[in-house]
Amino acid sequence: MTPTINADRLWQSIMDIAAIGPTPEGGSCRLALSPEDKAARALLLNWCRPLNLHFEQDAIGNMFLRREGREPAAGAVAFGSHLDTVPTGGRFDGVFGVLAGLEAMRALEDAGHATRAPLELVNWTNEEGSRFAPAMMGSRVFANTVPLERALAIADDAGVTVGQALRDSGQAGPLTPSPRGWACWLEAHIEQGPVMEAEGADIGIVTGTVHARYFQLTVTGEPSHVGPTTMDRRHDSLAAAAEIILAVERIAWGAEPRGRASASWISNFTNARGNVANITRLHCDVRHEDAAQAAVMEQALRTAITDIAGRRGVLVAIDPYAMFGPVAFDAALGALLRDKATARQLAVRDLIAAAGHDSVLIAPLCPSAMLFVPSVGGITHNPREYSTPEQVARGAQVLLDAVVELAG
Amino acid sequence: MTPTINADRLWQSIMDIAAIGPTPEGGSCRLALSPEDKAARALLLNWCRPLNLHFEQDAIGNMFLRREGREPAAGAVAFGSHLDTVPTGGRFDGVFGVLAGLEAMRALEDAGHATRAPLELVNWTNEEGSRFAPAMMGSRVFANTVPLERALAIADDAGVTVGQALRDSGQAGPLTPSPRGWACWLEAHIEQGPVMEAEGADIGIVTGTVHARYFQLTVTGEPSHVGPTTMDRRHDSLAAAAEIILAVERIAWGAEPRGRASASWISNFTNARGNVANITRLHCDVRHEDAAQAAVMEQALRTAITDIAGRRGVLVAIDPYAMFGPVAFDAALGALLRDKATARQLAVRDLIAAAGHDSVLIAPLCPSAMLFVPSVGGITHNPREYSTPEQVARGAQVLLDAVVELAG
Repeated sequence: MTPTINADRLWQSIMDIAAIGPTPEGGSCRLALSPEDKAARALLLNWCRPLNLHFEQDAIGNMFLRREGREPAAGAVAFGSHLDTVPTGGRFDGVFGVLAGLEAMRALEDAGHATRAPLELVNWTNEEGSRFAPAMMGSRVFANTVPLERALAIADDAGVTVGQALRDSGQAGPLTPSPRGWACWLEAHIEQGPVMEAEGADIGIVTGTVHARYFQLTVTGEPSHVGPTTMDRRHDSLAAAAEIILAVERIAWGAEPRGRASASWISNFTNARGNVANITRLHCDVRHEDAAQAAVMEQALRTAITDIAGRRGVLVAIDPYAMFGPVAFDAALGALLRDKATARQLAVRDLIAAAGHDSVLIAPLCPSAMLFVPSVGGITHNPREYSTPEQVARGAQVLLDAVVELAG
Repeated sequence: MTPTINADRLWQSIMDIAAIGPTPEGGSCRLALSPEDKAARALLLNWCRPLNLHFEQDAIGNMFLRREGREPAAGAVAFGSHLDTVPTGGRFDGVFGVLAGLEAMRALEDAGHATRAPLELVNWTNEEGSRFAPAMMGSRVFANTVPLERALAIADDAGVTVGQALRDSGQAGPLTPSPRGWACWLEAHIEQGPVMEAEGADIGIVTGTVHARYFQLTVTGEPSHVGPTTMDRRHDSLAAAAEIILAVERIAWGAEPRGRASASWISNFTNARGNVANITRLHCDVRHEDAAQAAVMEQALRTAITDIAGRRGVLVAIDPYAMFGPVAFDAALGALLRDKATARQLAVRDLIAAAGHDSVLIAPLCPSAMLFVPSVGGITHNPREYSTPEQVARGAQVLLDAVVELAG
């Protein structure tokens, strides 16, 4: 008997997690390692109890829920995503991947189906990076691309470190974050874009991700008084940052549709109404399906900054503090997902992911792949983010079908 | 014998206040009602003790130090300024006016000089408005242009109200803020601009102030993801705010040299690195010597905002929450200051103040005037703000000479 997911149970689980950290507009706010994130993690563990999964947690808070196989020494088939959200989070980003994995575990249990290889369901810590930068922190530390000690020392805007937040939320596990010898990794996710809906695709096979580069900029001008200080004597860091924001936007328009760029975070000092600002910090990123084109975008940004800084007599320090991709996911795994979707009479389309995902970090460790389900209207990181019960059920079933074949 | 100020004592007092809330670059940070502001106020009171001044304080924290006259019922000759600073404050803005007044009191005491009319030295609360908006809060409440209850409810960016800060700093006095029947008001201040230095003037007679209009803007867009969200589907509140900042700057350049405009304060939400911002708040102001031209500048700002909002599909709410001026100071008092400066062989120049000052609020209550001393390089709200010992001594002496004549 082929294990089959329970679409109602999957949907109800997604709604139950969404109710933790609800926002007035119908979305969710569960910043990494917040009380809401802690509560969602506890609910996941509670759901896993009747499934007899073995729970382990590492020192960056990543959660591993293991179902033993008939060959315990075989490499596990691993899958999952993340439960944290951005401040204006929807109900599906990340959550769908974790709960599709949970539903796969539940369906196997319902069917009394034992696999040869062990299975592991994973909830990665701080995928979003909203509270603590950079994003995909848990999988970065797991993959040894960011040292644990460096990650633990990173502070949020209120000065609370990751280490402190892990302790406060009880999520600092005993394991040293490191690869677990997985046979392969699968992540189900919502598309977060408009392509699948527009083309009537049910399942997206993510063949890879864009190349993205993150920058933290510090613009340093000169403090002065907004009244008597004539314009020619000003070195206004906020006005310089405004020009940079618009330069980023122009570069983005020029790189569409395969490239994109954003300035999203700002911190201004003195931020006093009577003062021309003198220190403005800005976060921005450039990304492109073609890594060489992303480098061209970065160069355009640097050229614009040099011009703005020179013209305005301000200093701009550029910290290119993180990047990801491009990643090509495992072709054989992608083909398997494509076959499983086709066998279910679903419409399939290949896609490149424009957002970062934990799978980007796992791909170098073991064969990895991602599948997408459509996002209604392409809206994401927004309370109106939505995928239908049928769409998420289809994605979870394809994930389960692939897991059953891979785990034997 | 003509009372004469002690230049060394005046300078030392300015340096002693500057040492409260020192900044690494040599300036001062004494935000209104902070522990540093409280300490500076306590030092002022300590200095006044041997002068037998009668201390009174009102419910918004304004300090009044009264020297009795031979005719106690006569209206007082009042003078002073403020001890609070912006975060990147220098050592002279506001402080000079209070300590020039203190030095006048000290010199009269040294000379055993009794005046007919009483004298009052004033330290106004929160002139800068850096922590609590609007600026000139103490004098606004004193002049009944802002109700006390409304001012007490205003919160800083950390959510602490003026009322709470007054209680915490022990500055909530028993008096109801209201006019005190003064015969006249004088304020000595640094120019904060480059004109006097450039023209070799020792004393500036401030004939009036510009007209200024303050605006709090709220830009509302739509949250989305910085990765997959194509540019045409974004409603980025931060990028819209950046355009507004540059529009303000263009309007300012067009209004020079008699007009000016600034965007100085920003608050961004979600301010998450993975999110296109959806709520950005911005503070800006326009000001001009000619009130009609300030209205034209406001209209240009509103037109620019309408264009930006329409083009980007964002909403911009405009709160024109405060204004000041134009004020014409008392011509007879100005003439008296001019005569006193000329009698001391000082070079005099008339000026319009481009910054707000407490005198703007007092001018409708009694004949009022301001005198300026030069600012080296025109630098202000900056640790490098500087006036020489000779420059401040000249200003204090002219203030004292005028006080002696006015008080009889």
